[in-house]
Amino acid sequence: MSGANLLVRGIGRLLTMAGEPVPDAAVLVRDGRVAWTGSAADLPDLPDLPDLPELDAGGACVVPGFVDPHTHLVFAGSRREEFVARLAGLPYDGGGIRTTVGATTAASDDELVALARARLAVALAHGTTSMEVKSGYGLTPDAELRLLRLVHRLAAEQPVRLESTYLGAHVVPAGRNRAEYLDEVVATVPLAAAAGARWVDVFCDRGVFTVDEARRVLQAGAANGLGLRLHAEEIAWTGAAGLAAETGCASADHLEHVSADDARAMAAAGVVGVLLPTVTLSLRSGAWGHAAVLREAGVELALATDCNPGTSWCESMPYVIQLACLQMGLSVAEAFRAATLGAAHALRHADRGHLGVGACGDLVVLDAEHEADLVAHLGGRPVRRTVVGGVPT
Amino acid sequence: MSGANLLVRGIGRLLTMAGEPVPDAAVLVRDGRVAWTGSAADLPDLPDLPDLPELDAGGACVVPGFVDPHTHLVFAGSRREEFVARLAGLPYDGGGIRTTVGATTAASDDELVALARARLAVALAHGTTSMEVKSGYGLTPDAELRLLRLVHRLAAEQPVRLESTYLGAHVVPAGRNRAEYLDEVVATVPLAAAAGARWVDVFCDRGVFTVDEARRVLQAGAANGLGLRLHAEEIAWTGAAGLAAETGCASADHLEHVSADDARAMAAAGVVGVLLPTVTLSLRSGAWGHAAVLREAGVELALATDCNPGTSWCESMPYVIQLACLQMGLSVAEAFRAATLGAAHALRHADRGHLGVGACGDLVVLDAEHEADLVAHLGGRPVRRTVVGGVPT
Repeated sequence: MSGANLLVRGIGRLLTMAGEPVPDAAVLVRDGRVAWTGSAADLPDLPDLPDLPELDAGGACVVPGFVDPHTHLVFAGSRREEFVARLAGLPYDGGGIRTTVGATTAASDDELVALARARLAVALAHGTTSMEVKSGYGLTPDAELRLLRLVHRLAAEQPVRLESTYLGAHVVPAGRNRAEYLDEVVATVPLAAAAGARWVDVFCDRGVFTVDEARRVLQAGAANGLGLRLHAEEIAWTGAAGLAAETGCASADHLEHVSADDARAMAAAGVVGVLLPTVTLSLRSGAWGHAAVLREAGVELALATDCNPGTSWCESMPYVIQLACLQMGLSVAEAFRAATLGAAHALRHADRGHLGVGACGDLVVLDAEHEADLVAHLGGRPVRRTVVGGVPT
Repeated sequence: MSGANLLVRGIGRLLTMAGEPVPDAAVLVRDGRVAWTGSAADLPDLPDLPDLPELDAGGACVVPGFVDPHTHLVFAGSRREEFVARLAGLPYDGGGIRTTVGATTAASDDELVALARARLAVALAHGTTSMEVKSGYGLTPDAELRLLRLVHRLAAEQPVRLESTYLGAHVVPAGRNRAEYLDEVVATVPLAAAAGARWVDVFCDRGVFTVDEARRVLQAGAANGLGLRLHAEEIAWTGAAGLAAETGCASADHLEHVSADDARAMAAAGVVGVLLPTVTLSLRSGAWGHAAVLREAGVELALATDCNPGTSWCESMPYVIQLACLQMGLSVAEAFRAATLGAAHALRHADRGHLGVGACGDLVVLDAEHEADLVAHLGGRPVRRTVVGGVPT
């Protein structure tokens, strides 16, 4: 994919996220990187690129490729019964994450890859060009390392740029001793790093892992060169967001019950707040107010799908953007920034999430003249074409 | 379209809405009507249909075609500035409905038809097989009758079954005397009936038309053989739902501020309650509780898109079904019933919204094994194939 050249013409409105919107614009990608953006009238001659491929945006709005910084993409099985019971207001303990662990463990490598590949195709068609993928549906060292390997196999065979996170501390497996399991997770961290994981993550929340337990796992990650991220304050306030600030996490994610003090600590420590509005919708929890708390504290915001079978079956960043605006109260500009630049910062990428010169040539031709129309048009087709590294997909 | 024969095989799960779900089912459409449904193993020999076309549902769930009983489909122009200002929390009086009246009046017949045709294609691809379309963006007798004519032109040239509603009483046009305008609307009712309108509707709400004004228009409609429907209790309680019960409306629509007493009157009078969840989302009004009030009172529920450029830019019944479940608290079964049988009842059609023998051969092959997956999978492709009158589209 690297090395591609492309001229995108006919852009009615260009959002680079590195400056003001540009009307009637063009983008030049050279060797897979943005080489020039601006008004189409100012496009320089390109005598050294005689056979330059062109893509006509047809007057549409073009934005940087969406970055999805929180997914659990590799899984098997369904959580349909749990979902139907929740909507009918009936009690149901189907096992939650453990249900998916069972189905994922029972599936073959090829089955898991085929399922994830289909989800990646949806994500790509909806404009996602970079994605973080967590393990966490294995819960033994071997099963977790298998999931990381499958992420890397997927990374090599399709266009979305993938990076993996070791989430052995997703939940304590059924029948396991809690302290022993935590020791095993910590002992697995070096193996995960050796297997190519870029990040370590912990589900730090009421009924899952405590702040002290999470700190141990994060410290092991840091000691092994992994970046840190944290599931924080989804179910209840436990101080997880404060731990994210203390340990220098790149992001704290969920944050439905974040306190204003912890949000200020996150802002001071440069921890990006990853919002997952489809979780609030799927769980019918009504937790829409935390975006305002984080914004007030000056936390940089990101958006993600949290793609998983139980609490957010969604591959679509445009759907997430819509919900962030219409339910969390983000402005259109805030939401697009959070889905591109903010999300790239949550993954510590300086060259993604924007179209400044030198950035990855990842962009999305919206099926709209203006980015606000993607938000306003409910249930419509959001994206016309996705480009990764200068290659139209 | 009438007269088509079709055998739909390979149905993993069939919802007829005329009985219990059927696994491993088939549907026979003969002369455009459902002739047989049941377990595929019980399919009779069909020696008189030697060249019967077949459609393989590939194991998917099949449901009756969605009926959308409330749209303002024929319009021109954008309400983008109003939308962006609303999301940014800024005051904005862009003129609302009157903005769209201006843009629609300025557009040619062919422009309006082309715009509406594209929206109908989206609706059809999302499973809508019947749709009500209101005038109301003309607001002079000629301009309103033009919109009704355009609905009938669209009805003749594409598969979705359309019926039209005269909504001259949408808003008092800028610069017009209120009483004179109402007289004009009443005087136009016979012309609308002669032009082929099936229904009359009034936006009866605070700041729009009063209950007494609405009663005059509805009575004129009834006197001219039109069926009655009413925009009721969207902005505030004004007693409109009670008027719908009093006058025998087929439906009262919106109902965000309906009272329990009025809901009981609706139930007693057989008025269907049409819920428009995308309006609550688009306006960020937070009005999600009225479905429960209506259910409690025993009102039959329907779902609709309210497709319009300002307060619900949406052609997708699956999107509406999702939101009805996840924000209004309908169960999966309630929402599918409301989008099919309930919506057909809101339009007083006994032979749509279900797949009992004799019903219209209108059905949807979902892109899912189970109807609950359409609700749970956010931002995914909802529909694989839509069939109207036995013709796959």
